Amino acid sequence: MRKPKKLINEPLNVAKEQLEGLVEATHGQLEYVEGVSAVIRSDMPQGKVAIVTGGGSGHEPLFAGYVGHGLADAAALGDIFAAPAPNIILKATEVADQGKGVIYIYGNYAGDNMNFDIAAELADDDDIRTHTVRVWDDIASAPLENIKERRGVAGDVFVLKIAGAASECYDDFDKVVAVTEKARDNTRSIGVALSAGSVPQTNTFTFELPADEIEIGMGLHGEPGVARRKMKSADLVVDELMQQLLDDLPFSSGDEVCLLINNLGASTYMEMLIANRRVAEICRNQGIKVYDTLIGGYCTSQEMSGLSITMLKLDDELKALYDQPCHSFALRK
Amino acid sequence: MRKPKKLINEPLNVAKEQLEGLVEATHGQLEYVEGVSAVIRSDMPQGKVAIVTGGGSGHEPLFAGYVGHGLADAAALGDIFAAPAPNIILKATEVADQGKGVIYIYGNYAGDNMNFDIAAELADDDDIRTHTVRVWDDIASAPLENIKERRGVAGDVFVLKIAGAASECYDDFDKVVAVTEKARDNTRSIGVALSAGSVPQTNTFTFELPADEIEIGMGLHGEPGVARRKMKSADLVVDELMQQLLDDLPFSSGDEVCLLINNLGASTYMEMLIANRRVAEICRNQGIKVYDTLIGGYCTSQEMSGLSITMLKLDDELKALYDQPCHSFALRK
Repeated sequence: MRKPKKLINEPLNVAKEQLEGLVEATHGQLEYVEGVSAVIRSDMPQGKVAIVTGGGSGHEPLFAGYVGHGLADAAALGDIFAAPAPNIILKATEVADQGKGVIYIYGNYAGDNMNFDIAAELADDDDIRTHTVRVWDDIASAPLENIKERRGVAGDVFVLKIAGAASECYDDFDKVVAVTEKARDNTRSIGVALSAGSVPQTNTFTFELPADEIEIGMGLHGEPGVARRKMKSADLVVDELMQQLLDDLPFSSGDEVCLLINNLGASTYMEMLIANRRVAEICRNQGIKVYDTLIGGYCTSQEMSGLSITMLKLDDELKALYDQPCHSFALRK
Repeated sequence: MRKPKKLINEPLNVAKEQLEGLVEATHGQLEYVEGVSAVIRSDMPQGKVAIVTGGGSGHEPLFAGYVGHGLADAAALGDIFAAPAPNIILKATEVADQGKGVIYIYGNYAGDNMNFDIAAELADDDDIRTHTVRVWDDIASAPLENIKERRGVAGDVFVLKIAGAASECYDDFDKVVAVTEKARDNTRSIGVALSAGSVPQTNTFTFELPADEIEIGMGLHGEPGVARRKMKSADLVVDELMQQLLDDLPFSSGDEVCLLINNLGASTYMEMLIANRRVAEICRNQGIKVYDTLIGGYCTSQEMSGLSITMLKLDDELKALYDQPCHSFALRK
């Protein structure tokens, strides 16, 4: 049986060590929140509404890679594919809060929901106002009528971008919340996996796919997708993904969108660029204007091979916020 | 036998289609050079010394991903792992030249050398001045005394960054050449492969590595490295790479460097961040200051798993140029 092959040290330390490597790479831009696996931007301005994100490790550069000016202010990090403990989230909340309240933005998973909710209660005891925006952009994970059961995937990136910009531009907590929720509601994703990622601690793959099959809608932790297909051409795969994606919101002629072609881990730039060629063609044919395109590993699942497509439908407010500068390890505009 | 699994269309079209996807992703920042597989920045300023790069496809985002303000002005692109033909380079040269001459910057491979040299002769017939800077940063590919036989790998990125900045800041051809050559001479790389990349046209891997072995110094196209090792911890692998890298220039206490931890394709961010943790530790212990750190897929070899470490030794001039803004698909500062 095929076994994972990774350049790591002690498997139980990967989450800690990769965070150390990230902090080193930012040269003073990130600081540890004392005593816990959380980071905060070192240039945290006083008096702003704070944005705190977080989740399991293993999806690098998410989440810590999006801490910085114009994005998240702090990130609370769990072990590989495990939610951060409530005390980690609480500590991050306490250091991030500037007296203006804290907005939690994270992917909609049971473990994260539970721990962020506990942290929110504890923060309330500290008289820190919080509000939670769960990202549920993965259209393959539940039908539209049960949108609140959908998982959060690469859409986190766009929601953090908008929320971070809003928190720099707007002084009002409710106004930041409102536009963050609008960004979440305007964001949809769908993915396709060609092969699995592996969990470092157990050195096993999260699933197995036959050599000639792909899985549409595979989750970031190997959660089952909507359909297995025989391997087919990139264009045909993108056509299937895009039809589901466009139908879901729906996106339609005249819309303007930001697009993210996300590498789930081990795919080549070549494959992502070829996918983007087809996505751009489909959008043009549908009368949808692509305002900006991100391509790369923004929200990964270890060495999973495959990609996801995320679209954020813009309006004037979202576009103005998207255009604001941001500066973090994983995103710079 | 393990077979590659990629999301592509017709294998013979991958180079063309991925370039189309890249041009789409830049939303008008890149234009095709008419009739050939080359791109030029659409905001090309008049009257500057031009920087033209190029080489085989398959190493995305190199080379076209570094065409933009403060980087290369144009890129001439071959098929997968194949040098661009002289006429492609010549066309790129003609459209890039603003009457101030063209500097060619590319990796030191026989095919690229031959075709860029032919293009240079043809450009000379057109009365276009050219000068060639071959990048030979891969210390594993030949001993120091034969440095001109070394291959070019991820060091291209730093050399293009400096040359692009210099060509925006300096009006003098020779001055741009001089600092580009200084950047090249101050740049060193070494890589380690855990598994091979594959060639789309043949759907075969470029080499095979046993499950428990890694190869130090593996080339971007599967050229043999300096040593096969049994799999060992990330720290021990980085220690071996760094010892060779630091000894080669040599880099020593008091030096200031830019660092690139380059994903050769299918490695996880986790592994690269863990490697960076150790690289940063070694540099600190050696008294070497890391001024900036880039981590990600900057110069890839399809789905090769592994990473390379590149260091550029700075001086005041190089640092000032490194700090200049740049804007391309793959690098933004």
